[in-house]
Amino acid sequence: MLVRMTTNAEAAGNPQPPRRRAPAGAAVLREDVTEAIRAAVFEELAAVGYARMSIEGIARRAGVGKTAVYRRWRSKLHLVLDLVSAMAVQGLPAPDTGTLEGDLRLLYEVTSRALRHPVASQVVPDLQAEAARSPEMAQALQKALREGQAGVANGIVEAARARGEIGADADGELALDVIAGPLYWRAVVVRGPKPPKGYLEGLTRATAAALRAL
Amino acid sequence: MLVRMTTNAEAAGNPQPPRRRAPAGAAVLREDVTEAIRAAVFEELAAVGYARMSIEGIARRAGVGKTAVYRRWRSKLHLVLDLVSAMAVQGLPAPDTGTLEGDLRLLYEVTSRALRHPVASQVVPDLQAEAARSPEMAQALQKALREGQAGVANGIVEAARARGEIGADADGELALDVIAGPLYWRAVVVRGPKPPKGYLEGLTRATAAALRAL
Repeated sequence: MLVRMTTNAEAAGNPQPPRRRAPAGAAVLREDVTEAIRAAVFEELAAVGYARMSIEGIARRAGVGKTAVYRRWRSKLHLVLDLVSAMAVQGLPAPDTGTLEGDLRLLYEVTSRALRHPVASQVVPDLQAEAARSPEMAQALQKALREGQAGVANGIVEAARARGEIGADADGELALDVIAGPLYWRAVVVRGPKPPKGYLEGLTRATAAALRAL
Repeated sequence: MLVRMTTNAEAAGNPQPPRRRAPAGAAVLREDVTEAIRAAVFEELAAVGYARMSIEGIARRAGVGKTAVYRRWRSKLHLVLDLVSAMAVQGLPAPDTGTLEGDLRLLYEVTSRALRHPVASQVVPDLQAEAARSPEMAQALQKALREGQAGVANGIVEAARARGEIGADADGELALDVIAGPLYWRAVVVRGPKPPKGYLEGLTRATAAALRAL
């Protein structure tokens, strides 16, 4: 996605053929600059939020010129969409403990830590807010969800089905909502403190019971 | 809250005593203007979001001058906080059907409709995003949650405890997360379509099973 968009942006920015041959290697985008920009985007997102974030602010924080950003991504939206896609591909580890309770417990352990990360707890609601008025953002986030969190939850449900722990005709979508909703609600909506001792165990027990009742 | 803030704003804006006596009734804030501004805020929030919303834009939409807004609220933040507080006080109807399943089913019916309302589905994630970097907004939203959704869910849990349907030592906070999380996740995070036939019944059954397992 990065390569394709860069090509488009450069094509759009240079409608005329160059008058002089560019020095060898000039068209290559330096990876360390790309990484500095990516890191700056996360920091800017956390600091000011998507709506207030500007290419100027990102460039300043990354210590590069605005052109360096625009050579790689044609807009703020495309920059953030690219980052969201990259995060989703990284994904979460798929638990495979052999029991429904074991898999849920591991998923909750990882997710609970990820959602408490300061960047996640600021950036995620921000992108959700943007998704409410940008269909492109909504689509990218849904894709990221499907490939990330929902993909892992789906794997847990399928494995439990194969072991006969969950009914064969259980509603798969409802199962995902039941697995993912409570922890997200607590971390991002209620913005509660770190779950107290025993919370994740209780949540695991409750969710397993809910899934068996589907 | 409205009255107190208006007084402060007017005091701050008029540090000198007025030179001429104001015409009778001039200090009274017209309720129809206040209502027009409130309605305009919801429309502006849905259209452009909290971060991009301006007092100018609100005044233009309400068909009033900026001064009319500033006489009532001293900032955009205070205006929105006031609206959030007002929504929370309105609250949701507390179900009282006599069974845990009946109460949950009614709560989900009402919440599902409320969350699909275009204004709610755009404004709620927006304020959540702002809460990630404004402690005042976070506090107001948490208070609204406690007095609204969480208050109702708490009533359902207490009634079920009294009837012996839920264990006396069940974790109350976890119960609220289990009740509220899945529908919010589906409506606001996944932004899925209207729940298919049978979804709310399935969710009710799953949640009741989860609560009994606490």
